[in-house]
Amino acid sequence: MSQRQLSLNAFLMATGHHIAAWRHPDVPAGAEVDFREYLRVARLAEAAKFDAVFVADGVAANFGSGSLEAASRNARASFLEPFTLLSALAAVTERIGLIGTVSTSFNEPYHLARKFASLDWISNGRAGWNQVTSNTLAEAQNFNRDEHLEHALRYERAGEFLDVVKGLWDSWEDDAFVRDKASGQFFDPARLHVLDHRGKHFQVKGPLNVARSPQGYPVLVQAGSSDAGKEIAARTAEAIFTAHQSLESAQAFYADVKGRLARYGRSPQELKILPGILAIVGHTEEEAQAKYRQLQELIHPQVGLSLLSGMIGADLSGYDLDGPVPQDLPETNGGKSRQALLLDLAARDNLSIRELYLRIAGARGHWTVVGTAEQVADQIQLWFENGAADGFNVMPPWLPGGLEDFIELVVPELRRRGLFRTEYAGTTLREHFGLARPENQYVRQRQQRAAG
Amino acid sequence: MSQRQLSLNAFLMATGHHIAAWRHPDVPAGAEVDFREYLRVARLAEAAKFDAVFVADGVAANFGSGSLEAASRNARASFLEPFTLLSALAAVTERIGLIGTVSTSFNEPYHLARKFASLDWISNGRAGWNQVTSNTLAEAQNFNRDEHLEHALRYERAGEFLDVVKGLWDSWEDDAFVRDKASGQFFDPARLHVLDHRGKHFQVKGPLNVARSPQGYPVLVQAGSSDAGKEIAARTAEAIFTAHQSLESAQAFYADVKGRLARYGRSPQELKILPGILAIVGHTEEEAQAKYRQLQELIHPQVGLSLLSGMIGADLSGYDLDGPVPQDLPETNGGKSRQALLLDLAARDNLSIRELYLRIAGARGHWTVVGTAEQVADQIQLWFENGAADGFNVMPPWLPGGLEDFIELVVPELRRRGLFRTEYAGTTLREHFGLARPENQYVRQRQQRAAG
Repeated sequence: MSQRQLSLNAFLMATGHHIAAWRHPDVPAGAEVDFREYLRVARLAEAAKFDAVFVADGVAANFGSGSLEAASRNARASFLEPFTLLSALAAVTERIGLIGTVSTSFNEPYHLARKFASLDWISNGRAGWNQVTSNTLAEAQNFNRDEHLEHALRYERAGEFLDVVKGLWDSWEDDAFVRDKASGQFFDPARLHVLDHRGKHFQVKGPLNVARSPQGYPVLVQAGSSDAGKEIAARTAEAIFTAHQSLESAQAFYADVKGRLARYGRSPQELKILPGILAIVGHTEEEAQAKYRQLQELIHPQVGLSLLSGMIGADLSGYDLDGPVPQDLPETNGGKSRQALLLDLAARDNLSIRELYLRIAGARGHWTVVGTAEQVADQIQLWFENGAADGFNVMPPWLPGGLEDFIELVVPELRRRGLFRTEYAGTTLREHFGLARPENQYVRQRQQRAAG
Repeated sequence: MSQRQLSLNAFLMATGHHIAAWRHPDVPAGAEVDFREYLRVARLAEAAKFDAVFVADGVAANFGSGSLEAASRNARASFLEPFTLLSALAAVTERIGLIGTVSTSFNEPYHLARKFASLDWISNGRAGWNQVTSNTLAEAQNFNRDEHLEHALRYERAGEFLDVVKGLWDSWEDDAFVRDKASGQFFDPARLHVLDHRGKHFQVKGPLNVARSPQGYPVLVQAGSSDAGKEIAARTAEAIFTAHQSLESAQAFYADVKGRLARYGRSPQELKILPGILAIVGHTEEEAQAKYRQLQELIHPQVGLSLLSGMIGADLSGYDLDGPVPQDLPETNGGKSRQALLLDLAARDNLSIRELYLRIAGARGHWTVVGTAEQVADQIQLWFENGAADGFNVMPPWLPGGLEDFIELVVPELRRRGLFRTEYAGTTLREHFGLARPENQYVRQRQQRAAG
C-alpha cells in the first residue's frame, strides 16, 4: 500500500512572506509587478512537483492599521491581480495547480464563475478558488460603502454566492456541446440547465457562457477560521488554509473541522487541511539562524511598531522602543484576547517593545520554523502524522531564495522519508490533491431519480 | 517622409466571424474553449506584425433573440473570458497588443482598473480596453435585474465609470515606488494620490493596489456608434471600432467623429478610426467566391433569422422568409444605429428577409469584401486614403484559415504598396498605434500650476 502523501502549495507573495523581505539583498527590486519574477517562482515550484501555487488577495492597497509613513516602508501596496496573474502562469506552466483568492463580498457570481471556468479551460484543469470575504474598511470604501460588511451578513452572502456559482458551473452537462458539423447542431438543448436563481442576495438567470470546465468545478478552498468559516468549509470546501503556531492548536482545529464533515455526508478525505509554514532553512542550524537574523534586522522600527500596535489594539509609538511593554494599556474592543496574550508574553519573557514586535512581525502570525532540512522535515512530519495537517502552504520568507532553500534542502528530505511525490501522478489539481471530479448536479439528480 | 501606415487588428472570435464558421471542415471542433487555438491565431497575427488582437465580449450566453433551437445551431454560447484569455496570451506573445472588451454596466471600476493595470504589467504595456455598455436583457438578468438598462443611463454611468478608472490608474505617480532598500522606504507618500471619488453612480476611495502601469493607461477603445457613443469617444477614446457597409457611410462617420475632437482640445491623430472588414480572399476571384459560397451554404435558416432579429431589435420569425423586410419595426433600446443601417440596406436593395440575413449573417453587419489580394487591398487603400479609416479590424471569416489567407495574400500586397509595417517599431500597443503615453493627471495639474 502506498504511503499517505503530503500536499504542498507554494504560497506566492511578491518579494516573500517576511515583512522585510523586499529589503533582502537578493530580492529583485520591482518583483511585485514583474510577471517574470512570479513565473520564476512558479516554475521552481512546478519543477519540485508542488501541488499548486497559491496567491492571496485584497481589493485595496494594504496600508495596515498604522500611519502612511509606516505603510510606505512596507511592500504590500502594489501587486498583480490574481485572475490575470494565474491565467498568465497557466500559459507557461504545464502541471502545477493555480489557486487564486477571490472575495465574494464586492463581486458578482456570474463574473467569478465565468473567470474561474475560463481559467480552468486555459490551464487544462488546474484552477482552484480560495473563497474569502472582505472584512476591511479600506476594501469596502473602494466599493461604494462607508463601513465594512458585518460578519454574519458577509457569510450569509458568501454561502448564497457559492450556491449560485456552482449552479452556473453546471449550466452545461459535460457532453452538452455535440458540435455536429453535418447536422448543424452545436449544442444539445436537453443538456443545458438554466439556473434561474432568485435568492436573498442574488438573482441570476444563467446559463454561464462557458462550457463545463475540465475539473467540473475548480478546487474549492476556504481560509476562514471563525466558527461560521469552519462550518462553511465543512459543507463546501475541498481544502482549507489555516494558521497555527503550535501542534496542539493545529490538532484541535483539524479534529474540529474534520469532525464537522459527517453531518454533510462527507468523508475526512474530501477536505484537505493545509496550515501555513514559514520555514527558514540552512545547511546548519547556525546558517538558518543567521538567515533569520538577517531578515529580522531589516524590519524597520516603524513597520514593526505599526504591526504590533495594530495587533495589541493600542498606539505604542509614544513609548521607548527599548523600554518595557506598558501593561496598563487601554482595553481594546477589538482583539481583547490577543492583547492579553501579547502582554502575557511580554511579561513572561521580560520583553522590550522592540523585542515583542520582532517576535511577531516576521511571519505575521504564521508558524515559523528555523533550522536544518532535518529539523524542518521533522516538524512537518510531526504535524502530518499526528492529526494536525494533510499538507502545508509553504510560505517562502523571501523570493526566490527562500523557496529555493526549501526545494533544495527540505523537499529531498521529505522524499527520503517517503512523504512527498517525485513525479505528478495526474494532470489536474484535483488529481494532485486526490479529490474526485464533482458530477454535474442536474445529472446527479437525474441519476438519483432514475435509481429511486 | 515616411508614409502614413495602416493599423491592423486581428478581431479574434472563436471558430471565426462568419456565423457558420464552426461548420467549416477546417475549423477544429472545440476551438471556442481551447486556449491553444486562440494562441495559434494570436501567433499568426503577431508574426504578421499586426497592431493587436481584439476580443469582443458579452456577459451572457449569446442565444440571440430567436428560439433555443436556433441558438443551439450557433457557436456563440461558450467562449473564453477576455481577462483570463488575454493574460494567458500575454505570457506567450512578445509584441502584439491585447485589446479586451469589458462592459461597464455590471462591473465595478476598482475591479476593472486593477485587472487592466495588471494585464498591462504582465504584457509589458500591450493592453487595450474596449469599453462597452451591456444592452441585452440576457446580460441584465445575470446581474440581479429584470430589465436591461436604459440607454441614456448606461452612457451616463459609463462616463463616470471611466473617470473613476482613470483616477485609480493615476493613484501612483510613475516614480512613486522608490524601493530604497538602504533607508527602508518602499514608496514615497508624496507621490501617492487618493482619489476619494463620490459621484452619482460610484463612491470609490482608492488608491489602486497596482503601481501605474507601463502605458500609464491601457489604450482606450470605444465601439458605440450612437450619438452618445460618438461623443464619449471624441472626449475619451484613442481608437474606435465601427461597422460600415459603404465608403460613404464610413467617410461620414470618420468626418463626424474626427470633427468632434477639437472641442475637447484633441487633434485628429489622437483617435484611430478602425472599421471592421471581413475579407474572403482567393488567388482568383472565382476561388474567393467559392470560399464565400461554401460558408454561406452552411448557414442554417434558423440561425440566419435569429441573428437578423437580434441585430434589428425585433422578432422576425412570424414573417415570410422570402417576403419583404417590414420597415415599421418598433424602435429598439439596444443598437439604434444598427437597426437604421439594416432597414436602409433592405430598402435600397429591395431584399427579402432571407436575402437580408444572408447579406449580413456572415459578417454580422460588418463590411464584407470577397476577392483577390489586389481587390481586397484596393478597397482597404481606398478607404484608408479617402477619409474613411485609419486602419481596420480584420475579421477572419473562419479560423485559422481565414486569417492565414489574409496574412499570406493581402498583407504582402499592402506592404508592396507601402501601407503596412514589416517590423514593429516599438514594444507597447501605444507605440504600435502611434499614441502618446498619457501623463498622470496629478502630475499634469502640478505642472500646470507651476507654469501658471
